[in-house]
Amino acid sequence: MPHTWQRVAIVGVGLIGGSIGIDLLRRGLAKSVVGIGRNKASLADALKAHAVTDTTLDLEQGVAEADLIVVCTPVGQIAADVRRAATACRPGTIITDAGSTKAAIVAELDGQLAGDVAFVGSHPLAGSEKRGPTAATADLFVDRTVVVTPSERSRSADVSRVTGFWKSLGARVVTIAADEHDRIVAATSHLPHIAASALAASLVEGDLPLVARGWLDATRLAAGDPGLWRQILLANRDHLLDALRRYDESLGRLRAALEHADGDAIERFLADAKQTRDRFET
Amino acid sequence: MPHTWQRVAIVGVGLIGGSIGIDLLRRGLAKSVVGIGRNKASLADALKAHAVTDTTLDLEQGVAEADLIVVCTPVGQIAADVRRAATACRPGTIITDAGSTKAAIVAELDGQLAGDVAFVGSHPLAGSEKRGPTAATADLFVDRTVVVTPSERSRSADVSRVTGFWKSLGARVVTIAADEHDRIVAATSHLPHIAASALAASLVEGDLPLVARGWLDATRLAAGDPGLWRQILLANRDHLLDALRRYDESLGRLRAALEHADGDAIERFLADAKQTRDRFET
Repeated sequence: MPHTWQRVAIVGVGLIGGSIGIDLLRRGLAKSVVGIGRNKASLADALKAHAVTDTTLDLEQGVAEADLIVVCTPVGQIAADVRRAATACRPGTIITDAGSTKAAIVAELDGQLAGDVAFVGSHPLAGSEKRGPTAATADLFVDRTVVVTPSERSRSADVSRVTGFWKSLGARVVTIAADEHDRIVAATSHLPHIAASALAASLVEGDLPLVARGWLDATRLAAGDPGLWRQILLANRDHLLDALRRYDESLGRLRAALEHADGDAIERFLADAKQTRDRFET
Repeated sequence: MPHTWQRVAIVGVGLIGGSIGIDLLRRGLAKSVVGIGRNKASLADALKAHAVTDTTLDLEQGVAEADLIVVCTPVGQIAADVRRAATACRPGTIITDAGSTKAAIVAELDGQLAGDVAFVGSHPLAGSEKRGPTAATADLFVDRTVVVTPSERSRSADVSRVTGFWKSLGARVVTIAADEHDRIVAATSHLPHIAASALAASLVEGDLPLVARGWLDATRLAAGDPGLWRQILLANRDHLLDALRRYDESLGRLRAALEHADGDAIERFLADAKQTRDRFET
């Protein structure tokens, strides 16, 4: 039996926050869900999508009665929002987030909150190039991976509460230290994002008529929100630059093989890449 | 009313060749379709998929009675297969192909064939990481772009026959000179392929658990057949190296912005890329 929450506060009701709210209410996991935002129209959309039961523009007021707070704001804003929430909520409240980077946030918050309020970081791998409460859907997290990033200071009871929360939405939870998480997502998420953006950016007008499915797949990530991704890439700059260096080396090997018209080396490279890709479904 | 063929010979009955055969027969556009291949099992699969009405391992015999020959073999083999077909078919037969690169093939064949046999090159932008006759499907070409690449030596009646053939399968046909075609697909198809392969190749074992949808999209092309792609990349080496240079410059601008933690420059780059990507559907 999953835990049932009295009142969940969701700070930032976009694709992720809205989808969390929809699931909590549909699955009967929360008696009420308050959506906290800075934009009245978005909050109205969230209400209409049955993602929240009530809304407020006032973060402190919104979190006051919550027993769970999920901060789904952009990466650059999460730590500040968690701090504000922590000062306004009741003792015993658990706070988590949905940020795509974790090390800076966890370092800033873990064990630093006043009162009996705990923060344990999370990252649901369920993003999309879409955004906003109108993109929120039921069951977004079913069979998706959610990374929970406890530190040495985290109490295991708090980690369990956060883990249980994501599992109650159908997610697979893996527990990884924040810095290790950031190192890995630099390769699996942030590097692909900039590779896709650089591909899209290097297309010229005359090429447009011959764009087909392959280019569309390879560049889909480039449709993501530039303002959100700016914050993610900056927050994970060092790991991302490392991943970019490895990518450059990889591209360089292929370039050398092309320059030398070395068919065997080209085919070996492609075969190795295919072997890695074929470990996953299409 | 589309033209109806007496007998179409398809050399190489894989995803593309098989799908052509299925459509020709389902749409009543050909009385018979002969599948020509080097592998009995593949030809049996093509028969089972209703992609052909009969099969042969003997190219010369297979093309002898055809009024249309479509060569769907790997890029490195197309010119030789067209030459062989041209010596064995009847006067008046039209030959086209489905190769992903065109300049070398067109230069080698156009106006060079004996007798009253014409070749006009084609490239249907309907590829996939899948291959073989079992991957063939009906209506693969509906609303897809097919590039037809006539040269100064092509007779307009022959170009019309090839254009009409692809239109009868539901495709949108664009006519582009072979070298210009190759220059464009270097950017829209071959560069994305190597970018995807280099992404897949740079993943390490420990990263696998955090692979999610974004990485899967960005690397989908890497699942393509290494032997086929080796030939495509080699055939379009010069244009591809140019496209790769522009991609490197693009990545380099983003790297510099990251190194300087220049958030505005990062966001501008991402916004430009998004603007290009948003010109297309997801």
